[in-house]
Amino acid sequence: MLQSLTQNQRAYIAGFLDGDGSIYVRAKPNPTYRFGFQIAPYIVFFQSQSSQERFGEICKLISVGHLRIRSDGILEYIINRIDEIKMLLECVRPFAILKRRQIDLMLKIIESKSQVENEDDFEKLLQLVNSYRELNYSKKRKQRSLTP
Amino acid sequence: MLQSLTQNQRAYIAGFLDGDGSIYVRAKPNPTYRFGFQIAPYIVFFQSQSSQERFGEICKLISVGHLRIRSDGILEYIINRIDEIKMLLECVRPFAILKRRQIDLMLKIIESKSQVENEDDFEKLLQLVNSYRELNYSKKRKQRSLTP
Repeated sequence: MLQSLTQNQRAYIAGFLDGDGSIYVRAKPNPTYRFGFQIAPYIVFFQSQSSQERFGEICKLISVGHLRIRSDGILEYIINRIDEIKMLLECVRPFAILKRRQIDLMLKIIESKSQVENEDDFEKLLQLVNSYRELNYSKKRKQRSLTP
Repeated sequence: MLQSLTQNQRAYIAGFLDGDGSIYVRAKPNPTYRFGFQIAPYIVFFQSQSSQERFGEICKLISVGHLRIRSDGILEYIINRIDEIKMLLECVRPFAILKRRQIDLMLKIIESKSQVENEDDFEKLLQLVNSYRELNYSKKRKQRSLTP
């Protein structure tokens, strides 16, 4: 379990996340959701299949999430459950360097998402999601808003 | 200095090396060298320029090596002095997972290189370098030998 990781293990995962991991969040249009969007955060690690055995050890250490092999042979380890993302980020946060700002903002998004009660709250959440994208320097992704 | 890093810092660097780092060694034909080849090991980290500030913090932590900005804007942090590679690898070895075998073999290559006295020794060193390349799953690189 994540909570029982030693300080060294947390520091290792922080380094691996900084080097190989992606932390991102999507606002997916979905009419079945109350405000028309599903807010979906992810943490993903990629490795080539040649490292499967050792990579499996790291996945086991992380303990949450699931491994899949893509059709092109790339291994993808995905954590997409919000409670697990929160636990993992809180666990490694004190040791992270490169992705510290992403971690902080993602934890804020998760907190904000859990407190949405009305459209105003949701609009604020969308703004946080948009600012997260800016942090990740992705020019391609769409800026979402409830009030276009 | 590398020796004064805490256990957590070593674990972090091990994770970052596993995720983002490359450890490799080249046998470069060079007639000015006694046995016709220069054995050149490297550790390299790559990052996009957008992470320069944070990446600089990691480079500072590692303390050996030097940073350069490639013409395409990619940051390259290179450690190519043998004594520094050895120190860094010994420092992070207990915490590494993905690249543990590469680290062990590279330390063996460095040890072997320091003990070369004759052509036989050098041929053995070249074999180690070749086996390192196999470990890295690179099909493109040339297998070097003194006795073709």
